[in-house]
Amino acid sequence: MQRDIFEASEYERRIERTRERMHERDLDAVVVSDPANMNYLSGYDGWSFYVHQAVVLTAEGDEPVWVGREMDANGARATTWLSEENIRSYSDDHVHSPHDLHPMDFLADVLADLDVDGGRIGLEMDAYYFTAKSYTRLGSNLPEAEFEDTTLLVNWARVKKSERELEYMREAARISEEAMVAGLDAIGAGVPEYEAAATIYDALITGTDGYGGDYPSIVPLMPSGDHTGTPHLTWTDREFEDGDPVIIELSGCRHRYHSPLARTTFVGDPPAEIERTADVVVEGIEAALDAAEPGVTCEAVEKAWRDTIAKYDVEKEDRIGYSMGLGYPPDWGEHTASIRPGDGTVLEEDMTFHMIPGIWGDDFGVEISETFHVTADGAETLAEFPRRLFTA
Amino acid sequence: MQRDIFEASEYERRIERTRERMHERDLDAVVVSDPANMNYLSGYDGWSFYVHQAVVLTAEGDEPVWVGREMDANGARATTWLSEENIRSYSDDHVHSPHDLHPMDFLADVLADLDVDGGRIGLEMDAYYFTAKSYTRLGSNLPEAEFEDTTLLVNWARVKKSERELEYMREAARISEEAMVAGLDAIGAGVPEYEAAATIYDALITGTDGYGGDYPSIVPLMPSGDHTGTPHLTWTDREFEDGDPVIIELSGCRHRYHSPLARTTFVGDPPAEIERTADVVVEGIEAALDAAEPGVTCEAVEKAWRDTIAKYDVEKEDRIGYSMGLGYPPDWGEHTASIRPGDGTVLEEDMTFHMIPGIWGDDFGVEISETFHVTADGAETLAEFPRRLFTA
Repeated sequence: MQRDIFEASEYERRIERTRERMHERDLDAVVVSDPANMNYLSGYDGWSFYVHQAVVLTAEGDEPVWVGREMDANGARATTWLSEENIRSYSDDHVHSPHDLHPMDFLADVLADLDVDGGRIGLEMDAYYFTAKSYTRLGSNLPEAEFEDTTLLVNWARVKKSERELEYMREAARISEEAMVAGLDAIGAGVPEYEAAATIYDALITGTDGYGGDYPSIVPLMPSGDHTGTPHLTWTDREFEDGDPVIIELSGCRHRYHSPLARTTFVGDPPAEIERTADVVVEGIEAALDAAEPGVTCEAVEKAWRDTIAKYDVEKEDRIGYSMGLGYPPDWGEHTASIRPGDGTVLEEDMTFHMIPGIWGDDFGVEISETFHVTADGAETLAEFPRRLFTA
Repeated sequence: MQRDIFEASEYERRIERTRERMHERDLDAVVVSDPANMNYLSGYDGWSFYVHQAVVLTAEGDEPVWVGREMDANGARATTWLSEENIRSYSDDHVHSPHDLHPMDFLADVLADLDVDGGRIGLEMDAYYFTAKSYTRLGSNLPEAEFEDTTLLVNWARVKKSERELEYMREAARISEEAMVAGLDAIGAGVPEYEAAATIYDALITGTDGYGGDYPSIVPLMPSGDHTGTPHLTWTDREFEDGDPVIIELSGCRHRYHSPLARTTFVGDPPAEIERTADVVVEGIEAALDAAEPGVTCEAVEKAWRDTIAKYDVEKEDRIGYSMGLGYPPDWGEHTASIRPGDGTVLEEDMTFHMIPGIWGDDFGVEISETFHVTADGAETLAEFPRRLFTA
């Protein structure tokens, strides 16, 4: 039944890498709730993370175990490489239950059945969809268990990408390029923001060259006008106006792998100040890309950007990038390495980052981003897209 | 700055209803983390729920307080009705921090500043985005506080909709109708699933009659062929084939208010069995809609469906509907009342539900849904769309 997205051997390597990290921390099992981590270990893919679900990996066992809602067990059969006995599902009366029933009661039974209920169990304490209640409920069900916080354990196993993963990210980059062209073309004075968003969405899912795109983990973001300083607002009925700077941030998605891309356009004749700012951003991002290669730290990459823009008396405080790839809403970031001061993560071959620096003036902002792959020779950007200010 | 989506008086009524529920439980404050609840109380709207954020409402204070990332404070200024002093933001080194810094440390300081750090504080223990770590971290920062689980406190305040909310839901229903027409038209033998998904997405955001649509909280779902038994898988590169049943479930969205709609189509000549099943589903949903009126319980509505389909020897175990309206990914449901056995919630005027019953055979499923508004006279469906099996 399983979709042929990765070879079985790739899942075996992922499990092995995860178990190594578990052994280092003397764990008997980990409960993996982050949908991206669940997918990474089991292949599971479905819009079902609005109910409680998890993948359990034991230190000694064989396959991981998928735990979810009965209605989604067929989805697990269709998308995972797991055998029937390792797909365990709870009945619908556990969902938003008026009775005192919680999916974690069922998960606790699964852990007991796997004989780890008295052991050291890792929980993704700060992962999306693992709620406070999940934690307290597991605790009251498993009084003998010792819990450890393993929030980023699987995430860190994900940072170096396989050839197959890179292939999907490159396919996603082709989609990002198409969608960026569509978005830049759609924006103009008098066009409502939602029309540009619809055009971008259509392109993101229509895909390119005979394959479609998945839903991206973050919707296309298009802050415009004086809202370029509000990076996470989404589109409205407002019409673009002459004089609006517009930042487009989007990502194609292929088998849940992303390749984000941001560019800035200007409706009408751009003032000299915004053109100069765009030049600084381009010079800064190129310096940072030049600095990125195996053996260099994340903070050294950020310093290349910072030193470059400092020549123009510009400062920026936020991080300028992060490790990413596989993802589900609400985020395509991995929450591991960040390109910012204080992050000493050493770049290694086959890591992938989204570098998204920007500079904000009083009433406009300019962002230009690249997703890059760390190769033996340095940073290779996945998309090929002109790196400059556009006009609409 | 605030978008003119609701009058100030509407927010005042919402705060008042929430405070009444707080007083009943003797709470000094609630920390509201569910993005839909944050929006309900403050108006806040942004794709920023991938970092920790909250709205704090105190029993005695005036306005609620928005707490989020510095980068999103401008978004709060643009979308909420709150005054500047009630927009509190933490610096970027709290985000996926390599240091021992967590946004809940900042939130704890805000609670102390509001003088409720030694009081009874409600936490949405089982809400999306309120993680286990958020809970333990708040606990260690606030040793004097007494925490209460207030997971659905604001959700229950949301069940009866105002005239303005209903207006947005009706606008969303117009979009749902357009998108359903587009989806039914797009599906056919040889068409890849992603092409139909792209067409539906385009229609959902392009909107209708001069207004656009927001991103829906759940992507369009189109289980087809033998996957109609896997309701939460999303589209692939597969082409629809002659003989495929296809279920389309989608929702238009307007200012974050939804009006979901599901229909089933068949590629080619439908076999008699699926036509009969569709007739049973239609008869069942109509019986349930007829039963819905103020004073009737949710379980009585479900019973009308169950009794109808029992005449045809069909049984179904899952719930057939739920209260909904305002929402953010991953869900548009409110997690309050469900239309299922055991739910004694009494219907009241201006509640809104998505009723989505379905029947599955061995190799196909049929779902037909309606979003309805409880009026003095009974159930009024928000969309007007033929209630039958379609063919492609």
